[in-house]
Amino acid sequence: MKTTVAKLAKLVNGTVSGNKNTSLAGVAGLKEARPGDVSFLANKKYINLLKITRASAVLVNPEVKVPADLTVIRVKNPDLACIRVLEYFSPKPPALVKGVHSKAVVAKNVRLGKNVSIQPYVVVQPGSRIGDQTVFYPNVYIGHDVTIGKNCCFYPNVVIREKTVIGDNVIIHSGTVIGSDGFGYTVDDGRQHKIPQVGTVEIGDDVEIGANVAIDRARFDKTIIRKGTKIDNLVHIAHNVEIGENSLILAQVGIAGSSKLGQNVIFAGQSGVIGHVDVGDNAIVAAKSVATRDVPPGKTVSGVPARDHKEELRVRAAQIKLPELFKTIRELKAEIEKLKKK
Amino acid sequence: MKTTVAKLAKLVNGTVSGNKNTSLAGVAGLKEARPGDVSFLANKKYINLLKITRASAVLVNPEVKVPADLTVIRVKNPDLACIRVLEYFSPKPPALVKGVHSKAVVAKNVRLGKNVSIQPYVVVQPGSRIGDQTVFYPNVYIGHDVTIGKNCCFYPNVVIREKTVIGDNVIIHSGTVIGSDGFGYTVDDGRQHKIPQVGTVEIGDDVEIGANVAIDRARFDKTIIRKGTKIDNLVHIAHNVEIGENSLILAQVGIAGSSKLGQNVIFAGQSGVIGHVDVGDNAIVAAKSVATRDVPPGKTVSGVPARDHKEELRVRAAQIKLPELFKTIRELKAEIEKLKKK
Amino acid sequence: MKTTVAKLAKLVNGTVSGNKNTSLAGVAGLKEARPGDVSFLANKKYINLLKITRASAVLVNPEVKVPADLTVIRVKNPDLACIRVLEYFSPKPPALVKGVHSKAVVAKNVRLGKNVSIQPYVVVQPGSRIGDQTVFYPNVYIGHDVTIGKNCCFYPNVVIREKTVIGDNVIIHSGTVIGSDGFGYTVDDGRQHKIPQVGTVEIGDDVEIGANVAIDRARFDKTIIRKGTKIDNLVHIAHNVEIGENSLILAQVGIAGSSKLGQNVIFAGQSGVIGHVDVGDNAIVAAKSVATRDVPPGKTVSGVPARDHKEELRVRAAQIKLPELFKTIRELKAEIEKLKKK
Repeated sequence: MKTTVAKLAKLVNGTVSGNKNTSLAGVAGLKEARPGDVSFLANKKYINLLKITRASAVLVNPEVKVPADLTVIRVKNPDLACIRVLEYFSPKPPALVKGVHSKAVVAKNVRLGKNVSIQPYVVVQPGSRIGDQTVFYPNVYIGHDVTIGKNCCFYPNVVIREKTVIGDNVIIHSGTVIGSDGFGYTVDDGRQHKIPQVGTVEIGDDVEIGANVAIDRARFDKTIIRKGTKIDNLVHIAHNVEIGENSLILAQVGIAGSSKLGQNVIFAGQSGVIGHVDVGDNAIVAAKSVATRDVPPGKTVSGVPARDHKEELRVRAAQIKLPELFKTIRELKAEIEKLKKK
Repeated sequence: MKTTVAKLAKLVNGTVSGNKNTSLAGVAGLKEARPGDVSFLANKKYINLLKITRASAVLVNPEVKVPADLTVIRVKNPDLACIRVLEYFSPKPPALVKGVHSKAVVAKNVRLGKNVSIQPYVVVQPGSRIGDQTVFYPNVYIGHDVTIGKNCCFYPNVVIREKTVIGDNVIIHSGTVIGSDGFGYTVDDGRQHKIPQVGTVEIGDDVEIGANVAIDRARFDKTIIRKGTKIDNLVHIAHNVEIGENSLILAQVGIAGSSKLGQNVIFAGQSGVIGHVDVGDNAIVAAKSVATRDVPPGKTVSGVPARDHKEELRVRAAQIKLPELFKTIRELKAEIEKLKKK
Repeated sequence: MKTTVAKLAKLVNGTVSGNKNTSLAGVAGLKEARPGDVSFLANKKYINLLKITRASAVLVNPEVKVPADLTVIRVKNPDLACIRVLEYFSPKPPALVKGVHSKAVVAKNVRLGKNVSIQPYVVVQPGSRIGDQTVFYPNVYIGHDVTIGKNCCFYPNVVIREKTVIGDNVIIHSGTVIGSDGFGYTVDDGRQHKIPQVGTVEIGDDVEIGANVAIDRARFDKTIIRKGTKIDNLVHIAHNVEIGENSLILAQVGIAGSSKLGQNVIFAGQSGVIGHVDVGDNAIVAAKSVATRDVPPGKTVSGVPARDHKEELRVRAAQIKLPELFKTIRELKAEIEKLKKK
């Protein structure tokens, strides 16, 4: 795919400053770009790379100051423009054959939409319904009475347990398990007795779930992941959790049982929340932190246990000075002793 | 399944207070319950929900004070009673066809018990023995010379590597890997050389293991998970670890190589222990904490590195006051200066 | 396999002190060894076990003092010698049939090397190339246009997504996913829009990757794991990460997007690094710690956020004394009040 700066600017609804006729043949990061590549500046942190990039053009937002000799395409949201540019240059993903492969096992009463692609060694159990254009890569397992919407893409080795309900345009990466039993036991006679986990999981439209994630079914009722939420790799979501719309759950996060997250919530990498906690809309739990009580809407918390992020930063700043503080205290003590002797 | 309060009380060996003839048709949480549902109060923390629940009856323990107009069934252990109630109301899990599916590969010399169910795309390698009534969902892999007991249930995509020994009534959720090589290398000439991991894994009766767990085989000898222990999702158990009976290992916990855990030990979510550490019977490692030295029996530890939980709480309480403390110190210094000038 | 102390000493190029003719039939840890076993002391921490071991001979390094009646074989690197000894005594791993199993699906244009073993239910998509002697256990998935070198071993349920390039002698354990989409979105109109992840993953020779790991493909360009690096279970490696040669990434570590690790780097268990951070050669990030800024070569850091390890130890030591410190401050205050009254 070859194009010019001018044509690409038109595609992303941007304004060119520099050479409109330069030809472009690929996309790359600012550091990695070579002549002929278009690149982009999404985060101002990397603005110095504009001076050294070899890219032939760079997507930037309207306010950024750029070197005089650099051709740029100014757009409101360079990240969003980059999506269109990537889609333009990227080779289409490998096309999978439509229909049900002869080496898949799809139960007779399964209702299949139009143009589905069901690859080898997929198993779809009785009672399930699969929407139009949905794709199952090899070794995907769909349990009994599962409902899956349109335009979904499940990569190899995804497991969907019985009765799960999944919306449209849902992407699930390899190795992820939806609907495994929640972790529920009660002690009697010194032994752990399993509490049946007879609820289900419900996943909204436009959700994307990374690789090797585990989302447990509810004890009863439902575990819910609402529309537009994105979940990274190796995340644990326990039984009866609810996550609101458009939230971001980063890698290796753990959400314990019955906790409820609002909309646009962010859990950064390796963070978590204990059970039965409410996390309000637009709240942020910082990396490696654990929320142990309710987080009000809009608040950023950090630490173990998590507290107001600014307070945590003050505590951390004070901690560094602790060894020095002990020295100060010893000196004060000595001074007081001196004063007492006078 | 319809029943009455009186009949359900009989089933769970409980005493009714209220309307014995109310009919019941389902189970739900106190918040979610609708008329016709039975619910239960397992944790006194949620006692206020008794005032607002719409459940037609609630399982409570004998001491709980309840609103006058609420029908309750009093039982010693409401959680345990709830198990029976759930089993009564819940639809049976989907029945899998017995026998070996034509699209499974089971080696000729494998010894299969009675009434096993081996689903499509399962592979059982030579030399393995599978007990009566055991169920393998699709895509399960059983390596060479594996021994598995009776009444086990392995969900889709479970991998059991060669020579693993597993007891009776063991449940393993999807994506879990038992018997992967331990992480063992030794440096020579600046390169990491792999130490063969020729030991095995032994899993006792009544163990349940969550989704996407990894339990490594021993370097030599055995990695051991004893009877009745329950392991949550995404847990890492390294080579040569031993975990005693009836322990609870919560989600995303990491147990490093050669550590030994006693009976009834609890590792809360995202906690861990470094290698070669002993954790005594009934010890608890709090969420997000890491034990870096032996934990005596019965002790609760928390923090990184973990210390006595009460001590950790005192330190945390003090930390919050640190910024204020620095202010106090500055004031004291000023006062001393004043005194000195006098 | 039976041998004698003398013969084993010859195998590992060691010197016997004690009974050369004792016969040996197995290998075991110092604690577990029984008469007839050879054992080894790799870590001086366990030197006291030499007094109680029942092993008939022990591999030790030249300087170790040993009980007078213990037969030892002195070698430079007991761990390395142990590898040879284990290979000598261990039964060969189960041999898999060579060739392509009739129940595997290998696309017509795939280029297969000599003596490959492709087990049941493996899928290899069009355009891929597989080197000589490489083994795929059941249910392995190899996407489109993947290149895999010689002598690789992929255990059951490994998923390699399209265009990944993997070197020679690479071992990948079960459930691991290579080339899943990176976690990249940009917000517009309050919704998360997916940024296409069109890059690839490149894995060097002699890399070993544990079970249930997830390594994401780059946004564009490559995610790179260089030669000789070893990765433990349940590790997350985000898009555009680079890891240098011979590094060790322990269990449950998370490496966020675009971070670059040098050679011989160690990330201990449950540690992590945020995105866009450089970690220099020979640096160590301690267990449960998170690097939030660049780590210079050779430095050990710990804590959240990670700082110089010695500084962190000083801070931790001071923290323990905090509750006591508050008492001291109160006393000083009282003394100053007294002085003021005088």
